[in-house]
Amino acid sequence: MKALVYTGVGELTYSDSPAPQARDGEHLIRIEASGICGSDMHAFLGHDERRPAPLILGHEAAGVITGGARDGERVTINPLVACGHCENCTASLENLCSNRQIISMPPRQGAFAGYVSMPGRNLVAVPDGVDLRHAALAEPIACGWHAVRLGKRILGKDLSDMRCAVIGGGAIGVGAALALHAQGARDITVIEPNELRRARLADVAGFEVCAPGEPAAPENGSVDLVIDGVGYAGTRAAASAMARAGGVIAHIGLGEATGGLDIRRMTLQEITFIGTYTYTAQDFADTAAAIFDGRLGPLDWIETRPLADGQAAFTDIRAGNVAAPKIILIPEHEE
Amino acid sequence: MKALVYTGVGELTYSDSPAPQARDGEHLIRIEASGICGSDMHAFLGHDERRPAPLILGHEAAGVITGGARDGERVTINPLVACGHCENCTASLENLCSNRQIISMPPRQGAFAGYVSMPGRNLVAVPDGVDLRHAALAEPIACGWHAVRLGKRILGKDLSDMRCAVIGGGAIGVGAALALHAQGARDITVIEPNELRRARLADVAGFEVCAPGEPAAPENGSVDLVIDGVGYAGTRAAASAMARAGGVIAHIGLGEATGGLDIRRMTLQEITFIGTYTYTAQDFADTAAAIFDGRLGPLDWIETRPLADGQAAFTDIRAGNVAAPKIILIPEHEE
Repeated sequence: MKALVYTGVGELTYSDSPAPQARDGEHLIRIEASGICGSDMHAFLGHDERRPAPLILGHEAAGVITGGARDGERVTINPLVACGHCENCTASLENLCSNRQIISMPPRQGAFAGYVSMPGRNLVAVPDGVDLRHAALAEPIACGWHAVRLGKRILGKDLSDMRCAVIGGGAIGVGAALALHAQGARDITVIEPNELRRARLADVAGFEVCAPGEPAAPENGSVDLVIDGVGYAGTRAAASAMARAGGVIAHIGLGEATGGLDIRRMTLQEITFIGTYTYTAQDFADTAAAIFDGRLGPLDWIETRPLADGQAAFTDIRAGNVAAPKIILIPEHEE
Repeated sequence: MKALVYTGVGELTYSDSPAPQARDGEHLIRIEASGICGSDMHAFLGHDERRPAPLILGHEAAGVITGGARDGERVTINPLVACGHCENCTASLENLCSNRQIISMPPRQGAFAGYVSMPGRNLVAVPDGVDLRHAALAEPIACGWHAVRLGKRILGKDLSDMRCAVIGGGAIGVGAALALHAQGARDITVIEPNELRRARLADVAGFEVCAPGEPAAPENGSVDLVIDGVGYAGTRAAASAMARAGGVIAHIGLGEATGGLDIRRMTLQEITFIGTYTYTAQDFADTAAAIFDGRLGPLDWIETRPLADGQAAFTDIRAGNVAAPKIILIPEHEE
């Protein structure tokens, strides 16, 4: 099969690679769509010690099961492989499984490739008529879906009564905004500094878009639920200023390890910060269902490119030249 | 009346001061016991811009109502004066009242004095037989009571199943540990660097005491609920290392405004940080009730000194020479 292999800092090589076999009890999936995530970009830039070269990146994928009892089934892939036995798995907190694996981190190769092997419980069936490129968005949107659910639980009120802000207009931010809308929020602002991307998002239904510091941006101290989909010191500083007394910051990003939060203000104003990591199996299934029945909108804000052009896609994203919040790479399969 | 007036950085002056009159609709309380808080120490050191000299500090007080319909009633004072009308007050979140006042911050003088004026709704009656020096502990312990309640709510499990750690063995930390015990926790460790204080706390029932880094200290990644009763970058770093996946940090201290949290770990392990500020009126009443009926133990870990010796008490605390987690100052009243 062809694969896009991360071979060193800033370098992706499109090359022949041995196709995987289905592991014991797993299925082989022929990949039809595989999105580029911010964490793939971190790895590409050499900033993620969990993803050393050489490695096939990519963990937002959908495809078709090849062989076995479910041969031919169209599926979207939950890339998080949990053990199913530990205390957290037993509590349906698979995302906190202490033995968790994810494709695109050793020992599992990623989905910028022709095929991956995955356990059956990680595969959610995609109805006929749903585009697999849209089904591949279940993974990034599930991160926002999960963050929204945790934030809502702590706030203890209906989202319809709340002012919500999302920092970052990439797929994590857009997914979080769409998840907010699908879960009932009506006052949602996405804050995005890149003008090209703002223009692209302006006509996506369900939320407003503005630049940081614009008059349309939420005032400091006014927001019930802030979702930081970026995770740098600067975005956390903005989040802790924006939250109202008693408000919640749900933090998805892994940009910088420390700094930014105004902890004095958070203490005096009882602001809660929730670290959120990926999604539970239920969140993933709920997000996929919301994609399938249209609650997350037409999902027409993606851009698709051939997997063979992966290096250029990474370089363009890095340069800020991509308007779409998500590029989906499409592998070519020989007949 | 005599009062201990903060007159400049590092300087408290015991001097004659005009006794206050009861404000409209308020009561005059003759102070019988008034504890020294860490925030009084911040002000004394010139680190609290909310408390400019000259000012009477002190906000942990109990005494006897003088004059009016409740003349002679023994009371402990909730020092937080909320407006009662705003959105947060209406939701019983008086601690987040946007118009809140507290004695020891302008425009209200503090309780290191013979008398203060307070609204009747801030005064909780103390039963006969309860020492007013113990009743004065309702304020600092209510801070811990509130933090425990918020942490328990987010964890969503019984405290009896949880490992709990409290950073700091001052009155906030000890109060939080006793509040944890009173609310059902059984695995509680207080971490305190001062050896003198550790020795003093060793025989207080309800929790273990250890130094940071001792083998008896909780292992990193093992604690369900960490209460930071100090609030410096170093204690927050310890808290974010100690919390288990899915755990909660309840943060009471106001030591340093920023820094310390390992946000990358908190994100990957879904650790929640709650800023907690003081207590609601209900928390204060619940804490007072727990003092009165003995659920918080004999409260014999306090030290009392005359108000006239206030400057020396502050200096001794600052030098680390005080074993007791709380010094309570006792005003002298002329007959």
